[in-house]
Amino acid sequence: MLARKNHYNVAVVGATGAVGREMVEVLEERKFPAGDLRLFASQRSAGESMAFRGEDLPVQLFTKEVFRGIDIALFSAGAEISREYAPIAVQAGAVVIDNSSAFRMIPEVPLVVPEVNRHALRHHQGIIANPNCSTIQMVVVLKPLHDQFRIKRVVVTTFQSVSGTGKEAMDELLEETEALLSFQEVSPKVYPVQIAFNCLPHIDDFLQNGYSKEEMKLVNETQKIMEDPTIRVTATTVRVPVYVGHSESVNIETEKKLSANGARSILSTAPGVQLYDDPQRKIYPTPLEVAGKDEVYVGRIREDESIPNGLNLWIVADNLRKGAALNAVQIAEELIKG
Amino acid sequence: MLARKNHYNVAVVGATGAVGREMVEVLEERKFPAGDLRLFASQRSAGESMAFRGEDLPVQLFTKEVFRGIDIALFSAGAEISREYAPIAVQAGAVVIDNSSAFRMIPEVPLVVPEVNRHALRHHQGIIANPNCSTIQMVVVLKPLHDQFRIKRVVVTTFQSVSGTGKEAMDELLEETEALLSFQEVSPKVYPVQIAFNCLPHIDDFLQNGYSKEEMKLVNETQKIMEDPTIRVTATTVRVPVYVGHSESVNIETEKKLSANGARSILSTAPGVQLYDDPQRKIYPTPLEVAGKDEVYVGRIREDESIPNGLNLWIVADNLRKGAALNAVQIAEELIKG
Repeated sequence: MLARKNHYNVAVVGATGAVGREMVEVLEERKFPAGDLRLFASQRSAGESMAFRGEDLPVQLFTKEVFRGIDIALFSAGAEISREYAPIAVQAGAVVIDNSSAFRMIPEVPLVVPEVNRHALRHHQGIIANPNCSTIQMVVVLKPLHDQFRIKRVVVTTFQSVSGTGKEAMDELLEETEALLSFQEVSPKVYPVQIAFNCLPHIDDFLQNGYSKEEMKLVNETQKIMEDPTIRVTATTVRVPVYVGHSESVNIETEKKLSANGARSILSTAPGVQLYDDPQRKIYPTPLEVAGKDEVYVGRIREDESIPNGLNLWIVADNLRKGAALNAVQIAEELIKG
Repeated sequence: MLARKNHYNVAVVGATGAVGREMVEVLEERKFPAGDLRLFASQRSAGESMAFRGEDLPVQLFTKEVFRGIDIALFSAGAEISREYAPIAVQAGAVVIDNSSAFRMIPEVPLVVPEVNRHALRHHQGIIANPNCSTIQMVVVLKPLHDQFRIKRVVVTTFQSVSGTGKEAMDELLEETEALLSFQEVSPKVYPVQIAFNCLPHIDDFLQNGYSKEEMKLVNETQKIMEDPTIRVTATTVRVPVYVGHSESVNIETEKKLSANGARSILSTAPGVQLYDDPQRKIYPTPLEVAGKDEVYVGRIREDESIPNGLNLWIVADNLRKGAALNAVQIAEELIKG
């Protein structure tokens, strides 16, 4: 996939964002064999510095010229930046792992969750797309069930944390909460209405069909990653006042009967999955507990008695890690395995 | 239903709880023809006083003797108290409107949402059950759709506010939030884990089938109130860090094809429903906005493209008002219409 070397020069574009910072941390934690690590940001953040392996690395303004000598470029600076700069990085010889939605649904671009479809990495043209956070955690859990029992339909409702929007949204939740506790007015800037002590059924823009883009990502990306356009998905995505960690209430209908115990048995050994399911003993995942963890947690597994072959699951993951930075670094790790 | 009089003596049992306080407010707001209003609580709160129509009414310790002369007793002090004292109140000549789960599933006890099944009030034996908050708001919206298009299946995920647990849970959310903002440890008492900035897929006790009691209430109460045991319901109920207002992501499958516009048209004139659905203009209900309102708000109405006849809806109501106190007072209003 990538020519074998001892070290790879890595660029992080959007290094000072919520996901960018996590990318730098994950690269260090997982001892990714980075030679040079170059950090880039826009005008606003260039000039800062960030710690990496005990060094302070400068965050530089990124331009079209910065990709020379880079082996792997991790992009997390929004779709517009990706659309403009990813092709330039590829032309300069880098493989781009892009966290934005810019290229995800282009047929030639692999959309990869390593536990699910690492083989799709074999055929790329320089750009690999990192899926949307809410999709990643869902497919990690659904794929092993689909392989054995064939999932026909998914009804998913999400509880998404503000870090999915970015650092400024995390600040807004904090500022609003502080204001409310001291009886001051709040004036939302990032979200259209107050997020503190509230739930907003609104993530990303709305489309003509009434769904939000976030909801359609769950539909389209799931089919692409699971490589099965016959899986029917319908989604409702909701922002909740949680800092880190997305939760999902997932109802599935399978072709063959799958019991709750059968699902537990499969998921207990599934890659990247942590089965956490014993509600009588108060064991079920919550975003607060799962924040900072690498695995996708699943609990509250119940047979859905409203249809012959149905199951309800509660799936929680750290949206900045497995939902973004970790998955991107895992893709990089696959690439350098060659 | 009740002998016609100019005034009815009303008792509120559990008057100092989150729902009890709302009951007193709603009785005043709606100019319920209360003669005497007598407020009762347990040892812990007896001795306080509460405002009603400009007067300070004492909250008295309630005993088996207090129901003499009472026409209508509103109970909101938990299932155990209801089980013990409601029959005593009935024997003393009162009609009991009970907000607990104690009697809801007893076949002879009407379980009533006036907009949906007020006729069930015709045959009671002294006790009328007020449904669970999460059920009330759902059936107010689903009934008019069911009448015309027959709902076959419901997949519901709830986002329930802490006021559903009670006043001490509202205090816990506040205390935890304050502690976290000043970097102190939190020590949950009401909930098993921290609720501030978190989501708990755990409401009420868990049953052998893996569902919580709250989830099974949505199944069983919906069938009873809609008077149709063929409606299949599966539920996931989740506590969120919101003070007042429950939200529900509801997916329905209908027998006959129902378009989003068709549903909007029906719901725009449905009793007790406020259609609030224009996401492009950022019009969708949130619990913060709906708190304090009497109507059940519905928005995000979308055709579910994963099945031929499906619809997604986002339903929000004030759980203390329509989900509890208001519905109970509306039942009382129906009773005195005779």
